[in-house]
Amino acid sequence: TLAAPAIAQENPKISWRMTSSFPKGLDTIYGGGVDIADRVRAATNGNFDIQVFAAGEIVPGLEAANAAGAGTVEMAHTVLYYYYGKEPTYALGAAIPFGLNARMQNAWYYAGNGGTLMNEFLATENLFGIPAGNTGVQMGGWFRKEINTVEDLKGLKMRIGGLAGVVMQKLGVVPQQLPGGDIYPALEKGTIDAAEWVGPYDDNKLGFNKVAKYYYYPGFWEGGPVVHAVINLNKWNELPKNYQAILNDACAAANSNMLGKYDAKNAIALKELVGGGAVLKPYSQEILNAAYDASLATYAELKKKSPHFAKIYDDQLAFKKDAYLWAQIGEYTFDTFMMIQQRSGKI
Amino acid sequence: TLAAPAIAQENPKISWRMTSSFPKGLDTIYGGGVDIADRVRAATNGNFDIQVFAAGEIVPGLEAANAAGAGTVEMAHTVLYYYYGKEPTYALGAAIPFGLNARMQNAWYYAGNGGTLMNEFLATENLFGIPAGNTGVQMGGWFRKEINTVEDLKGLKMRIGGLAGVVMQKLGVVPQQLPGGDIYPALEKGTIDAAEWVGPYDDNKLGFNKVAKYYYYPGFWEGGPVVHAVINLNKWNELPKNYQAILNDACAAANSNMLGKYDAKNAIALKELVGGGAVLKPYSQEILNAAYDASLATYAELKKKSPHFAKIYDDQLAFKKDAYLWAQIGEYTFDTFMMIQQRSGKI
Repeated sequence: TLAAPAIAQENPKISWRMTSSFPKGLDTIYGGGVDIADRVRAATNGNFDIQVFAAGEIVPGLEAANAAGAGTVEMAHTVLYYYYGKEPTYALGAAIPFGLNARMQNAWYYAGNGGTLMNEFLATENLFGIPAGNTGVQMGGWFRKEINTVEDLKGLKMRIGGLAGVVMQKLGVVPQQLPGGDIYPALEKGTIDAAEWVGPYDDNKLGFNKVAKYYYYPGFWEGGPVVHAVINLNKWNELPKNYQAILNDACAAANSNMLGKYDAKNAIALKELVGGGAVLKPYSQEILNAAYDASLATYAELKKKSPHFAKIYDDQLAFKKDAYLWAQIGEYTFDTFMMIQQRSGKI
Repeated sequence: TLAAPAIAQENPKISWRMTSSFPKGLDTIYGGGVDIADRVRAATNGNFDIQVFAAGEIVPGLEAANAAGAGTVEMAHTVLYYYYGKEPTYALGAAIPFGLNARMQNAWYYAGNGGTLMNEFLATENLFGIPAGNTGVQMGGWFRKEINTVEDLKGLKMRIGGLAGVVMQKLGVVPQQLPGGDIYPALEKGTIDAAEWVGPYDDNKLGFNKVAKYYYYPGFWEGGPVVHAVINLNKWNELPKNYQAILNDACAAANSNMLGKYDAKNAIALKELVGGGAVLKPYSQEILNAAYDASLATYAELKKKSPHFAKIYDDQLAFKKDAYLWAQIGEYTFDTFMMIQQRSGKI
């Protein structure tokens, strides 16, 4: 009768709380946290039970990782750039302006040094992080008027946060902080001139095309933002090894699943938005070039402020240089040819 | 004492054999099978033990899925287009010429109808399939001479198989079947004029740049080939539900992990190959256009042959049309800008 208790310990009953940074209305990104919990429950016959709480139910959305670090909850589902003000290094795990695209962010994490380096840093914040979702490149926001030059950005009140706000401020934009629900009336009244939210699927639900028809792209500050599961480091270390493996793989599956859902939903929503009057406009090269230079200047400043940022930024930069060398050979020429077929009605 | 046996059943001891389609020398793609087995073992404290066998150890590489369907082994790690001759529908789960790229193939599987439709088909072959790896777009092969026009392809002996071979044959190429180890001497002696293998990392190990310096791209017949775990359907159905969940998530994790590894390794290998004399050349638009038309003609034929193919092809085509609409907005313009920075030395 020694065997039974030993085996019984393999799937002990564990209950955790996951605080999400997202409201339930953002069903795809909030749903990514539910997806993780469902997968973990299925893999443990319900013995490892993670309850998911929407933003505000336990702590505000932008406090999710802090609550996990402090042990208020065992884990959070969040985007690490929300915490760049606490320590800029956080942003490198999610997205920085002109950073990696979704596929490269995964490659850097899984096959480059990204996973190791980010977790070295996150350990100093009492956290362990696992990539657990991605939106793909986001859109560049809704504008009430066309913007063609950097001059057109001067004094523009734009709802935009984080490092993107810092960069846009260097171009003359006046960044505004507003919760999702307040954006529509502010655009309607003209108290703000522009706003960025997520991408076609989430933006369509809020109806921005009715109050600010120019829909710019790309969201150069979010080439492939990673949504993270961040876990209290002590709780992670206490977890049985098989539960660590199960949670890790559940997050990897949720990561691909969220990106797939966004890709499928965004295509359909984009057609609806354009049908509803949205005017798609690419950012001009002048604006992109100026924003790129402003981003490099920002990184130079942050490297001076934080040795963690300096070390991890340089590693990510070297990875990016190689990744964009390789991507432009096969992937880019394949996609370009297919896009020509799409535009000419041959798909 | 009722509880202990019930809990003990949760992680029963199960031993499976996985036959790989790949030799150990293709370490990244063969390693994907080992990655799955390692993850499953870690998630079950070693109780679900999958032993991985290289191509030829149990059955030849191109028989892997058939062996799983027949129950010779419980599962295989393979690429479904190897079996297109048995039933063309197989290829839609992996890659068809001018099909989906890696990210779209995932989106179609996870968030579109791909997973459901492919498993409806695979059930008729006594298999259950889970995406479990991807190489990303492959290269277009090594040529002893430059090819610029469709005329240049006429009579060319090229090592290329599957549906790609069928399409290339329509352009005048004479497809050749050769195992990996026989390609180098055949190119050296001139008994073949060209050969496609995988991409920079795997190609570099075989040294093709020394015997056929023109390295064409993209491999338009493999925009994002999925590597599959295919499981004997009865064995899958007999598996405890928690083991099904564990194996499913392990495959999803291995899927992203393999693509990340290829992305990281290909960039480095590409630089080595170019340093070693490889001359990178894009396929001309004339050749791509002719190959595209030949592919469409091939699909029209296959749709008449197989109702499964007709149904799933049409679903994938509709998904592709939307996916390439969406991809050209944010992703493409972001990547294009970043590639311009890479080329101008600004990354």
